[in-house]
Amino acid sequence: MTSGLAFTIDTIDGAARLGRLDTAHGSVRTPAFMPVGTAATVKAMTPESVRATGADIILGNTYHLMLRPTAERIERLGGLHKFMNWPGPILTDSGGFQVMSLAKLRRIEETGVTFQSHLDGATIKLTPERSIDIQRMLGADITMAFDECTPYPSSEEDAATSMRLSMRWAARSKAAFDARAGHGLFGIVQGSVYPGLRAESAAALTDLGFDGYAIGGLAVGEGQEQMFQVLDAIVPRLPAGRPRYLMGVGKPDDIVGAVLRGVDMFDCVLPTRSGRTAQAFTRTGTINLRNARHADDPEPLDPACRCPACTQYSRAYLHHLAKAEEILGPMLLTWHNLTYYQDLMAELRAAISARGVSAFAAAFAARGGEDGG
Amino acid sequence: MTSGLAFTIDTIDGAARLGRLDTAHGSVRTPAFMPVGTAATVKAMTPESVRATGADIILGNTYHLMLRPTAERIERLGGLHKFMNWPGPILTDSGGFQVMSLAKLRRIEETGVTFQSHLDGATIKLTPERSIDIQRMLGADITMAFDECTPYPSSEEDAATSMRLSMRWAARSKAAFDARAGHGLFGIVQGSVYPGLRAESAAALTDLGFDGYAIGGLAVGEGQEQMFQVLDAIVPRLPAGRPRYLMGVGKPDDIVGAVLRGVDMFDCVLPTRSGRTAQAFTRTGTINLRNARHADDPEPLDPACRCPACTQYSRAYLHHLAKAEEILGPMLLTWHNLTYYQDLMAELRAAISARGVSAFAAAFAARGGEDGG
Repeated sequence: MTSGLAFTIDTIDGAARLGRLDTAHGSVRTPAFMPVGTAATVKAMTPESVRATGADIILGNTYHLMLRPTAERIERLGGLHKFMNWPGPILTDSGGFQVMSLAKLRRIEETGVTFQSHLDGATIKLTPERSIDIQRMLGADITMAFDECTPYPSSEEDAATSMRLSMRWAARSKAAFDARAGHGLFGIVQGSVYPGLRAESAAALTDLGFDGYAIGGLAVGEGQEQMFQVLDAIVPRLPAGRPRYLMGVGKPDDIVGAVLRGVDMFDCVLPTRSGRTAQAFTRTGTINLRNARHADDPEPLDPACRCPACTQYSRAYLHHLAKAEEILGPMLLTWHNLTYYQDLMAELRAAISARGVSAFAAAFAARGGEDGG
Repeated sequence: MTSGLAFTIDTIDGAARLGRLDTAHGSVRTPAFMPVGTAATVKAMTPESVRATGADIILGNTYHLMLRPTAERIERLGGLHKFMNWPGPILTDSGGFQVMSLAKLRRIEETGVTFQSHLDGATIKLTPERSIDIQRMLGADITMAFDECTPYPSSEEDAATSMRLSMRWAARSKAAFDARAGHGLFGIVQGSVYPGLRAESAAALTDLGFDGYAIGGLAVGEGQEQMFQVLDAIVPRLPAGRPRYLMGVGKPDDIVGAVLRGVDMFDCVLPTRSGRTAQAFTRTGTINLRNARHADDPEPLDPACRCPACTQYSRAYLHHLAKAEEILGPMLLTWHNLTYYQDLMAELRAAISARGVSAFAAAFAARGGEDGG
């Protein structure tokens, strides 16, 4: 098929790729990290600040937006880009994952999933066709096929049943998708931790043909080693010329390891959620700013970081904001964590460009991790 | 006395004055509104954003800061300006008002006030000397004399006893204050709603000599009419060449009326607190953005406003943020409300400069007020 999304690979270093994905709302430098803008806002950030961190693209959550303010309302108001004042590319998920994790009284049938809203208990049915239509109303640059996120752990039989349902839904998602220039539809590989099922899923999606290929159902408790094993098995089976998106991942070292294995796109709530609980990612490890040892520390959070939290404030001040539960705390720490993630992606891109990504990954692993405070 | 703070009056229009107050950290254009930065942050705002609204000076709360992170810690870290990254002038209150409104188990004696911290129950004594020393450690450009904020209502006898204690504390505050260029000490007129007591207080403070004169104990429930009567009685008794500061005031029309009566400085939590409860001040009245009538409204909050909330978003989006309880809601609405207040001050200054402040006040009164939604 001719894709609605041009994807250009500039450099390949081992399995890692440096590229550019062109959408109706601009280009995405890959490997890319997408901040999560669940309810039409990246929590505690203005869109200008999100852009200043270096983000090219953000993610919106179909499940949340369909419930409030509703996709119909966003469409009437001119689409999600205009509504939330984010002029860049937006990827929307299909709602499948949140139906599993947030909604109540789910009933899964061949046609789709019926569930109760976690907001008001209303009974709602989400089908592949409905999910694709919602994402069209939102104005997504990248639309995700509707799938069932297989629970973890699952038996191979249950994982096969779930994956095959998702593959039938992928075909219906594609049939329902209105192809346009600058807009694309991604399929989602499922199959839990079973290499045979993952291979079957990848083949089914490749046969259908998508603008990009996501890997779903990981980072759900299987651990990094098993996640990397799945990537080792599945990434080589995905079309080389199309972007690969590892959904919901992850910690910084998860991302480095996945880039080494050929993944191009990521999203995760970790930097934003951590920013609201006083957890900061730094070049010397993860820091809990509530810890009393920061109370008198005049030093910056991360002296190598360019964000306002690091260039304009001390650890003592950030500690004070956390203790006083001031809104500026989540604002500054979210800004910092997203900057950390975007700088990591920029470093990865530079390393691939210089064909030194393996050395970068080794140096990154030596940086240090959780410091417990 | 020779003041540590130069105050230049450029234009007088009726009783209203256009002026400039020069401090160690820069100039304040008067009439001025000071956003409240209680705990070393103007809630939900970065200092850059506070400055962008047009604020020249902010207020810090001695009571909150002495409890957390403590004045000693802020001094060790280089003072409040550096700690919170606000390079402009800072006025600190004396702690007296918050001791009355927030602390528990207060005991008022001639020496000072003993109370329990609302944070951890610790027993603390605040005296005029201690309050002045705390404000010195914070690095205040403008220090407030320690006073007892007389409860409202009070009998004339109780109000007299309270005011005379505050006048003795004002003398002790002045004795404890270390005069330096660019730094000043303001006395606080008390006396409740009793003109004779207010006059006695003003005379006592004028005899002592301060860099500025605050009017305390108003906006505590007496109503706008009685507040204006007190101003009519007291402002003419204050030294003409020194700034006058009406503490804790107020609503926009309170400020307009007080400027007409010769007040130069104001502070109030109203714009910031309202911003956190989805209340917005606009040129056509006060708006509650939680109201469902805004859900589909593509129009800006206030089309005449220059702030990001108004230039970049719809009422529908601001309504959505309020309903979803997203942090960006308080961020944008605080920014808006502070911009509204600063623009009002700029309009007042322009009107005085053009010797048209009475006409401005009449037009302002005709603008409309609460619209209930």
